[in-house]
Amino acid sequence: MSTELRQRLFQALNEVTIVDPHTHIDPHAPASRNLAEILGYHYFTELCHASGMARERIEQPGLDPQEKVERIFQHLGPLNNTVQYSWFIEIARELLDFDVEVLLPEHAEPLWNRAAERMASPDWEDQVLRRSGLSRVFLTNDFDDPLAGFDTHRYIPCLRTDDLVFHLAEPRTRERLADCSGIDVGGLSSLRQALERRFLHFVSHGAKACAISLPPHFAPHPISEARAEKALDRLSRHSSETDAADREAVSHTVFWMLAELCREHHLPFDLMIGVNRGVYERGVHQGRDLFDSRMSLIQYRELFNAFPDVRFPVSVLASTSNQELVAHAWIFPNVLIHGHWWYSNTPSLIEADLAARLEAVPRTKVIGYYSDMYKLEFGLPKFAMFKRVLAKVLAERFVVDRGWGEERAVDLGLQVLQRNTQQVFALDD
Amino acid sequence: MSTELRQRLFQALNEVTIVDPHTHIDPHAPASRNLAEILGYHYFTELCHASGMARERIEQPGLDPQEKVERIFQHLGPLNNTVQYSWFIEIARELLDFDVEVLLPEHAEPLWNRAAERMASPDWEDQVLRRSGLSRVFLTNDFDDPLAGFDTHRYIPCLRTDDLVFHLAEPRTRERLADCSGIDVGGLSSLRQALERRFLHFVSHGAKACAISLPPHFAPHPISEARAEKALDRLSRHSSETDAADREAVSHTVFWMLAELCREHHLPFDLMIGVNRGVYERGVHQGRDLFDSRMSLIQYRELFNAFPDVRFPVSVLASTSNQELVAHAWIFPNVLIHGHWWYSNTPSLIEADLAARLEAVPRTKVIGYYSDMYKLEFGLPKFAMFKRVLAKVLAERFVVDRGWGEERAVDLGLQVLQRNTQQVFALDD
Amino acid sequence: MSTELRQRLFQALNEVTIVDPHTHIDPHAPASRNLAEILGYHYFTELCHASGMARERIEQPGLDPQEKVERIFQHLGPLNNTVQYSWFIEIARELLDFDVEVLLPEHAEPLWNRAAERMASPDWEDQVLRRSGLSRVFLTNDFDDPLAGFDTHRYIPCLRTDDLVFHLAEPRTRERLADCSGIDVGGLSSLRQALERRFLHFVSHGAKACAISLPPHFAPHPISEARAEKALDRLSRHSSETDAADREAVSHTVFWMLAELCREHHLPFDLMIGVNRGVYERGVHQGRDLFDSRMSLIQYRELFNAFPDVRFPVSVLASTSNQELVAHAWIFPNVLIHGHWWYSNTPSLIEADLAARLEAVPRTKVIGYYSDMYKLEFGLPKFAMFKRVLAKVLAERFVVDRGWGEERAVDLGLQVLQRNTQQVFALDD
Repeated sequence: MSTELRQRLFQALNEVTIVDPHTHIDPHAPASRNLAEILGYHYFTELCHASGMARERIEQPGLDPQEKVERIFQHLGPLNNTVQYSWFIEIARELLDFDVEVLLPEHAEPLWNRAAERMASPDWEDQVLRRSGLSRVFLTNDFDDPLAGFDTHRYIPCLRTDDLVFHLAEPRTRERLADCSGIDVGGLSSLRQALERRFLHFVSHGAKACAISLPPHFAPHPISEARAEKALDRLSRHSSETDAADREAVSHTVFWMLAELCREHHLPFDLMIGVNRGVYERGVHQGRDLFDSRMSLIQYRELFNAFPDVRFPVSVLASTSNQELVAHAWIFPNVLIHGHWWYSNTPSLIEADLAARLEAVPRTKVIGYYSDMYKLEFGLPKFAMFKRVLAKVLAERFVVDRGWGEERAVDLGLQVLQRNTQQVFALDD
Repeated sequence: MSTELRQRLFQALNEVTIVDPHTHIDPHAPASRNLAEILGYHYFTELCHASGMARERIEQPGLDPQEKVERIFQHLGPLNNTVQYSWFIEIARELLDFDVEVLLPEHAEPLWNRAAERMASPDWEDQVLRRSGLSRVFLTNDFDDPLAGFDTHRYIPCLRTDDLVFHLAEPRTRERLADCSGIDVGGLSSLRQALERRFLHFVSHGAKACAISLPPHFAPHPISEARAEKALDRLSRHSSETDAADREAVSHTVFWMLAELCREHHLPFDLMIGVNRGVYERGVHQGRDLFDSRMSLIQYRELFNAFPDVRFPVSVLASTSNQELVAHAWIFPNVLIHGHWWYSNTPSLIEADLAARLEAVPRTKVIGYYSDMYKLEFGLPKFAMFKRVLAKVLAERFVVDRGWGEERAVDLGLQVLQRNTQQVFALDD
Repeated sequence: MSTELRQRLFQALNEVTIVDPHTHIDPHAPASRNLAEILGYHYFTELCHASGMARERIEQPGLDPQEKVERIFQHLGPLNNTVQYSWFIEIARELLDFDVEVLLPEHAEPLWNRAAERMASPDWEDQVLRRSGLSRVFLTNDFDDPLAGFDTHRYIPCLRTDDLVFHLAEPRTRERLADCSGIDVGGLSSLRQALERRFLHFVSHGAKACAISLPPHFAPHPISEARAEKALDRLSRHSSETDAADREAVSHTVFWMLAELCREHHLPFDLMIGVNRGVYERGVHQGRDLFDSRMSLIQYRELFNAFPDVRFPVSVLASTSNQELVAHAWIFPNVLIHGHWWYSNTPSLIEADLAARLEAVPRTKVIGYYSDMYKLEFGLPKFAMFKRVLAKVLAERFVVDRGWGEERAVDLGLQVLQRNTQQVFALDD
């Protein structure tokens, strides 16, 4: 009965076409071209490595893609309990019509061939999007991305600003900024001009958000002009002389300026809060980052107060921050809740976090989910996972516990799954 | 089956009459006189504001109460998923016989009229209490409250001490203390005398608890007499010269003295731990406070060790502190668990927190719930929410998971709902 | 239906014989000799004390064991909701054939007699192990334990190192080390030699792990040789002159050296992270410790990176650290998840923590449970509690939510319950 109710709600949620508000899709190669591109996703390589597969076996230079797939298949056994593994099974079943419950090493070759055949289809990208129920997909673009050569309606640009905030002290970053903006940053005014040009470039190419990921200790605050000028000056003259305090002053200066530019250009500023980079030094590519649950959204108090007109869709890495996020969105008009990020993107954590969100935060302020995917094929299983949990929460906590009708529950589900993304990011259709 | 079981347990829990051990009721106007007093509750105004309603629309000076209700009704849509909204629906249905699932703007006028009619009844207050199953209600009284002009048996005084601990450096607070105690505080001995007089006043008027809310960073400890005298002296002479360290020394001096007075007068000392005041500066009234989950009950180690004879019913603001609270009540005889406070007062958090409490803390040490209400009408829906969750936890975790009989489960529920409040606060009937 | 499914899974999990990977069993007296040894378990004495029984009543010198049992029976009422109490009920029912739902004071004598009769049986120890489904049991041995006079196959030695890391500054600890190793520690080289000898002694007596419990603030890091020599020198000459910094340098030096020795001797290094000792000063024996949730596994970053070849089975005391533990085991090959420790060892916390583990961590890396018991009788109810929760999680989150077959779910359960312990600790049979 309760299982049937969940199933009915899932079906209703699964019928609509939606926008994925955060991914790492390369718009020039959005879908996978072979199975190695799917299994190369860091969720698989890091779990293989963490359960005993040498990094060198996975990341061997010049490794043939099919050989890489063979190797990984030999190591999938220890992962077959994980939800990440289930994404792969669902891709095989739903997109490649290869239906097995557990993948064995001998499946590597037939599945490789099946994938090669299907992915060679000229409309594979369209097929994947259609079967996934996705109409449009946000990107993660470097600040110097020309944003050319792809359909910016389907692949919505998003200005990612980690490099600007945390690496402007590196000569390479300043060169990239000079190259794309035509401005050498030497002080506050040239910095603002350069950033302003990138915002104009992005907005004119259809960007709908600015985004950044932030370490747990980050606590944004404004820097005085004099302090900022001094730090920028040192940094522009001899980066070897800049010290940690200068670099931090520059980080905060850039961050604050980005918030000002978001205000001027009416862009939501996605904050993805809580990642410590490079913790496991010898980990596989993208499998080195962790977090520190000793952080608080109170660190963003000054920012949220200073920019009442900027919408901040906030993602947190640790479930221990979820109640703080709920409380902030419950109080601050400009704080929105955004998806279930990374280490919190597994069913039991989503379920607990989502229940707390839906029962205390205005329904207009919860953006249900984004896939964070690198290849389009992951949209289907990741959104399906979320929709199942959403259906469970709606069934158990709204229909059963609170006596809601099913239609009302579905409508709430569709709002967080579909309508809020449209509205928060001002998508026109 | 499980739903029916929950329903049976809820019915049994709902039959008894109980005491509400913490509210903000004004005993001179305990029930609402119109619908605006209900919708003016900060839970509604802050959620309206957080979802886009301008503070000025809500808090416009001189705003007509019915007009305020009309405005808020136009903005209830975004909140209709929240449990706070469900409290309002339940008030309308159970107390005002106005039964709708979702309130629309056109319901504002008929509901206003219905409320006006019912609330005009001379026994409205009694009706509300009776229908809510409440016999007595704790208050939150300023230290200089004369406690006169109301029935202190029904409305039990509770000495609230935030002003004394955190604002004694303000001349206005010292004036108030002088006015009500007849003593000008100039040093430790006059401070003790003044506080002693307030305790005598409160106890002689039937007070059953002393209470305070505390910020996350607070870590109580005794202050040496010499240090305390110096700080009090500066503070009493020229408050402009007192510095932050003096003010902190005074805070800790007063706090420790309150604990001593609780010991002498056998009053439980309610600690409500974890609130950061005024975080969102432009928020609506009472909608500006948040918390910081980076706190630990270990900060209270010295206090709990120093006062074995004082019972401390402890509330925590963040669910991330719940396990610490469980562990402290499991070890310290004088630490009790008190309700589900504020941002933790939503069903999914109550469910997780309550389950952890009931399975590890002696049943005599869990005071199930308080309403924290400002107007009597909120007692019914808030306690009903708690009783539903309590019934769910008892059904799933005791009857199903542990094989308990239903009567045994109900008895445990009644103990935390009813009997423990009587016993901990030494209520005579 | 779901209850029946859980029951079927539990039965399947309950059929196998397993190894308990962490206990405090005394191999010279592994089973209880009377009921007082069971009720003397700190879980009962601390809960009795916390609910009002004077410590002096429990720990009165020379107290007759049967009288102690009588006293505790008079105080069991307030605890009869706790899961700890249910362990006692299950011991009475399953091991002593004394079947009551709730124990009353009048049961004290008959149960005492029943226990006396059963425990007098010469094969009581074997009976208990057999009925508990346990084949072998890890111990917790002081570093100077001779490891003689017992069956080290059944009772597997484990080198416990808290004293070495945290108390080497105490003359008594250095004497004990000198006595058992034949080496007076005066510097790094003699320290290493002494520790090396203890490792050789333990490994040659069948030890399968090294273990330590750590306070929340501990953040291991290597100490330079010069600094370590200086600290060791001061400590060996006049311990009264050593200061806190010296003692801390010694702690870190010893800890790092233990990790090196674990690497050389291929011993897993069990880290039990998060306990604050002696918080409640006047508590009963072993009922004085608490925790501080403000800690992060990121404090172990340097250690986990420096010892890729050492397996670290990690236990955390607070459920708020569980997601960090999951993420670390998901990324670091050498970080394993170990049981549900102490204050996190109650059903609702196990359920949430276990679900998060099983859905994101490779199945080879989760060591499901250890009993932490002091007497063999506790193995049965504690493992039964875990198996019930494991069956619930497998039923709800794998069979129902993810559509797994029951056999597949049971196999995952058996891996975390049984096979991983064998493999991680390199047990030969």
